[in-house]
Amino acid sequence: MEKIKVGVLGATGSVGQRFIQLLENHPFFTVTHLAASEKSAGKTYGEVMKSRWKISSDIPAYAKDIVITLPKPTDTKGVQLVFSGLDSSIAGEVETEYAESGVIVISNSKNHRMDPHVPLMSAEVNSEHLEVLKSQKTSGKIITNSNCTIMGVTISLKPLHDKYGIESVMLFSMQAISGAGYPGVPTMDILGNVVPYISGEEDKAEIEPQKCLGTVENGQIKSASFAISAHCNRVPVFDGHTVCVSVKFKKKPSKEDILKTWKEFSGEPQKLDLPLAPKQPIVYREEADRPQPRLDLDTGRGMATVVGRLREDSILDWKWVVLSHNTIRGAAGAALLNAELLYKKGLISS
Amino acid sequence: MEKIKVGVLGATGSVGQRFIQLLENHPFFTVTHLAASEKSAGKTYGEVMKSRWKISSDIPAYAKDIVITLPKPTDTKGVQLVFSGLDSSIAGEVETEYAESGVIVISNSKNHRMDPHVPLMSAEVNSEHLEVLKSQKTSGKIITNSNCTIMGVTISLKPLHDKYGIESVMLFSMQAISGAGYPGVPTMDILGNVVPYISGEEDKAEIEPQKCLGTVENGQIKSASFAISAHCNRVPVFDGHTVCVSVKFKKKPSKEDILKTWKEFSGEPQKLDLPLAPKQPIVYREEADRPQPRLDLDTGRGMATVVGRLREDSILDWKWVVLSHNTIRGAAGAALLNAELLYKKGLISS
Amino acid sequence: MEKIKVGVLGATGSVGQRFIQLLENHPFFTVTHLAASEKSAGKTYGEVMKSRWKISSDIPAYAKDIVITLPKPTDTKGVQLVFSGLDSSIAGEVETEYAESGVIVISNSKNHRMDPHVPLMSAEVNSEHLEVLKSQKTSGKIITNSNCTIMGVTISLKPLHDKYGIESVMLFSMQAISGAGYPGVPTMDILGNVVPYISGEEDKAEIEPQKCLGTVENGQIKSASFAISAHCNRVPVFDGHTVCVSVKFKKKPSKEDILKTWKEFSGEPQKLDLPLAPKQPIVYREEADRPQPRLDLDTGRGMATVVGRLREDSILDWKWVVLSHNTIRGAAGAALLNAELLYKKGLISS
Amino acid sequence: MEKIKVGVLGATGSVGQRFIQLLENHPFFTVTHLAASEKSAGKTYGEVMKSRWKISSDIPAYAKDIVITLPKPTDTKGVQLVFSGLDSSIAGEVETEYAESGVIVISNSKNHRMDPHVPLMSAEVNSEHLEVLKSQKTSGKIITNSNCTIMGVTISLKPLHDKYGIESVMLFSMQAISGAGYPGVPTMDILGNVVPYISGEEDKAEIEPQKCLGTVENGQIKSASFAISAHCNRVPVFDGHTVCVSVKFKKKPSKEDILKTWKEFSGEPQKLDLPLAPKQPIVYREEADRPQPRLDLDTGRGMATVVGRLREDSILDWKWVVLSHNTIRGAAGAALLNAELLYKKGLISS
Repeated sequence: MEKIKVGVLGATGSVGQRFIQLLENHPFFTVTHLAASEKSAGKTYGEVMKSRWKISSDIPAYAKDIVITLPKPTDTKGVQLVFSGLDSSIAGEVETEYAESGVIVISNSKNHRMDPHVPLMSAEVNSEHLEVLKSQKTSGKIITNSNCTIMGVTISLKPLHDKYGIESVMLFSMQAISGAGYPGVPTMDILGNVVPYISGEEDKAEIEPQKCLGTVENGQIKSASFAISAHCNRVPVFDGHTVCVSVKFKKKPSKEDILKTWKEFSGEPQKLDLPLAPKQPIVYREEADRPQPRLDLDTGRGMATVVGRLREDSILDWKWVVLSHNTIRGAAGAALLNAELLYKKGLISS
Repeated sequence: MEKIKVGVLGATGSVGQRFIQLLENHPFFTVTHLAASEKSAGKTYGEVMKSRWKISSDIPAYAKDIVITLPKPTDTKGVQLVFSGLDSSIAGEVETEYAESGVIVISNSKNHRMDPHVPLMSAEVNSEHLEVLKSQKTSGKIITNSNCTIMGVTISLKPLHDKYGIESVMLFSMQAISGAGYPGVPTMDILGNVVPYISGEEDKAEIEPQKCLGTVENGQIKSASFAISAHCNRVPVFDGHTVCVSVKFKKKPSKEDILKTWKEFSGEPQKLDLPLAPKQPIVYREEADRPQPRLDLDTGRGMATVVGRLREDSILDWKWVVLSHNTIRGAAGAALLNAELLYKKGLISS
Repeated sequence: MEKIKVGVLGATGSVGQRFIQLLENHPFFTVTHLAASEKSAGKTYGEVMKSRWKISSDIPAYAKDIVITLPKPTDTKGVQLVFSGLDSSIAGEVETEYAESGVIVISNSKNHRMDPHVPLMSAEVNSEHLEVLKSQKTSGKIITNSNCTIMGVTISLKPLHDKYGIESVMLFSMQAISGAGYPGVPTMDILGNVVPYISGEEDKAEIEPQKCLGTVENGQIKSASFAISAHCNRVPVFDGHTVCVSVKFKKKPSKEDILKTWKEFSGEPQKLDLPLAPKQPIVYREEADRPQPRLDLDTGRGMATVVGRLREDSILDWKWVVLSHNTIRGAAGAALLNAELLYKKGLISS
Repeated sequence: MEKIKVGVLGATGSVGQRFIQLLENHPFFTVTHLAASEKSAGKTYGEVMKSRWKISSDIPAYAKDIVITLPKPTDTKGVQLVFSGLDSSIAGEVETEYAESGVIVISNSKNHRMDPHVPLMSAEVNSEHLEVLKSQKTSGKIITNSNCTIMGVTISLKPLHDKYGIESVMLFSMQAISGAGYPGVPTMDILGNVVPYISGEEDKAEIEPQKCLGTVENGQIKSASFAISAHCNRVPVFDGHTVCVSVKFKKKPSKEDILKTWKEFSGEPQKLDLPLAPKQPIVYREEADRPQPRLDLDTGRGMATVVGRLREDSILDWKWVVLSHNTIRGAAGAALLNAELLYKKGLISS
């Protein structure tokens, strides 16, 4: 069976690099189109990235000789789907252009996330939101994934919300520096330090989970109606966002209820055995001091959500700690899993 | 006027070192007694500490020639007050022994903190709790200070509690490694990592602020009755605990109310112009990304509480960020300020 | 073909953990014997290591149920070879006891390293030193590998020494904290800091390379006769020792000579296609700022030596930078490669 | 006595900030002129620096209301001396313009450093080089200080060179991130990592010490003639460059000779009791593991050179470790000390 030709927009950035890495030898997709800004356009990916590749394995051989173009749908020669890691300053328009030209856009950017016609999708959580694609007026379609900070949190909430109803969530993040891209955070700001602020992050964290856990009504997504309060912090960790959450439920479950619910949770990616799907979407660690980025980040090849420290909360109902890999599960990996789901469900026409 | 002779118990540990440093050239106190474990007893402080002194200024000259003894009150030759940085495994008994022998014990250890006859004191917050000293049956008296994590939080709550009444507090800490003493946290556990757990810390954080903000009734301290939920985390920061708090009030103040209350807050240490008292106990930073350990830790020579990011909370009422220096304001400095207060109030008899 | 039964001495320590990890599903060896101190003896490995396992993948399933014994050869039931990661305070005697009982000891400890009858072996460098095993008087034999700091340095020198003769070597190391084991370096000593001293390290670095590059004469190993001066430093890096070297040759090669020599270098592990052998023992990076621990550590699954920045030295002849993985290539991996070599050469009798 | 009016060029950068801080309440100088690029010109320093001030004490009050201008000498209203922390892309021309307009330029930039008519001065080392100022043709004069990396090294060599003659020096640096300015090093490049390369640094390190230790001949400075080989590395340390050196002497001194020479070393800044002069220019630490940035950086308020680990070198003669504060002694502090020397010697006319 022939592979689908795909492209990566924003191929030179941090998320773009992860796309390039995760797409190496992919069973469904073959990368033929790499787009970036004017500085890089016209050069090969290998040439441009020689001193900018920041992942600890080498640049995949397949990508090195691809000549980078500008992010324009005119030039894509048979590409049916693009992954977008574009900067939000241009992602909105560029992604729309690709969609208008018939290309499916799997975007990690924030621009279209809150559009009620666009799924804000985490494949295990809300694949049924794909239904709203029909309501998009372009021939290509746009699917987004959520902000990295709340990705794991939302996964840990999903099966509990279904059974017990979430009423409110306090969340407190300790976010890795890779989340800010490259060059990103200056070392003078974060070495031996924490910064209790990330521009725009709390705003996203307080509205995106409700959309992910929302319902489709009249061809649009309607967000769930619980409240979230977020404190977002930057810490000197390379990869891996750790989030402490306190949650109030409509109907308070027991500890055993929660652990059992997490253990049994499984979504479409697991049913369809998607290449990037973690076997166990939520992994609970029993140790008192877990999860930790250093020890748990690679669980499920960076695609699992690792949870620990479930205990009663003296104000809300329960509290726990969530870890997820911000550039894999929280960004490029989540997007690729969404694309794999579309492929397996036959939603990428050829 | 002659200085009061004082001792330091646990003089070789992290908190002990801070005591030694802060007591250099102190106008009220002169150190004549240093006590530590058998390994160190009989040797001079300079000899023992040569490779164990971990503060970036040198060992104060005055301390170098003092011969360390075991922590026994029999040997103190005129010492009227001791500062205790003893390990909690022995602090309880040893401190009681000193108190029984007529010595005032200013303790940073947790053992006596929750005794209703013992002030859990932060000099700006609850100096009126000294009243319960009368109910202690020993000739010497024991005064404790709170855990480092909630020190700054409690100070930031104090004037608001007085005016508006605290109803509940969610707190999320990012705590420095110096809080674990030396050798303390192994580098393999925390370099480029966060650990979402500190043994015993959340328990203390959920009960100590209420005692600090409590009232004296029938010669005992009765804790205030609000609830606290704490998430305590270790981060790779050297000194300085950063705490995010969300607070619900009995009567919700406006933003201006809160800022004005903090600005005007002042306690007995300021009125009595105590040597270690910060001019401004609570310093509010207007910048979006403050307070930060690296930039704000030394505010008020490490004795001020630095607050920032006051904003509405979508679940409780208000949220903000608190920073305080864990080994100065949160430990040795708080204890010394308590001792200075006792001195100025004439509570150290000679 | 049946696998050889092997043991790991010092199984709970840092090097022991790496042995356990690298031996998972090994084609030649099966672990049946795990030895550690009294604290652990009698318990299963899984039980003991629950909170002490410090590698980011989980404890291999095979090891979890093995009951730990004391390091005594009496109890080994058919084990023909042991890997030793024992502390040097006991490694000398214990390893001799195992050897006397007929077991081959592959040791990472320093105790027997400088014995002229014991190979100090890096499989690509000096496999011909195995000849001296005959001169060992025990029925089992002891083979050691060098200190982690000079492992990569020695590999980078080997083919140049053969062709051009080393006359002198200045080396400056920046060593990872994992080299000190666990709990090892206290965070207060190294966070945001460097320590220009590692106990005993310079002494080893100044004599071990000469033995590795020595010759067999009269059944003993005679060290090569060049001089080394070492400056050893600890830096806040998790894994990976980076070493700057300046080298004077007997006959000065050209830059092209050196690069070609490194590129063509290959040893017995490559010829015999040993499971753990890196395809390319020495990998040269052309980029101006490489090698770096974060980007290059996993080259050849942590078994390759990564070299960069070859340039003329204004005092000696040439200078360059060497990186090797201190707990894989510099310790457990080097030892396992030595064992694989023995196996393939038929030196493990059964 | 009236203070001299001075300016700071490049006032918003890292070195500029240090100048502003060190000049607060200075007994000789009063800052009236702050210059920076177009982005800042026309605004007050306080306004511009609100979120860019990176030193842990607050912006000095005196500087906040000064309106920043472009770096042009036309607008300086009575300024007799400027401190330059300008970027090297413009420092050359701008500094010359100021000198031509009659202003003394104390520069931390590299542009004029190797001009034989310009002192490359470290006040304790080579104040006699001021003699060449006469040969500068401008009415104002330019005095530079050396690169931060070799500042402390050169001080440690100075008195030994005078007595025993330096023949060659190998140096290996571990340099703090603040040396790269702000935003400077991206965190993704250095967190838990080392980078064995700093652009242009080794070139400077291999020629500047010889000029500092050179002699005045025919009104020009002639560099000393020994060779240096440098390996320069970036490490995750905030402030403080640590340098390992191995040195060969013309006439080999004993260990006692060296220690005595360092202890007795003193220069003009000490004789003239300059405000910023460290009492002891070279401080030797006896402990096995010192100097370290964290513990020794503030020695002499960041103006002393801290040395340790003196031991024999098996290839050259002696080796040791040098630490100096890169943004104080290695940059702004060194420049200010040079200015203080000029003032006291009456070389700033008014």
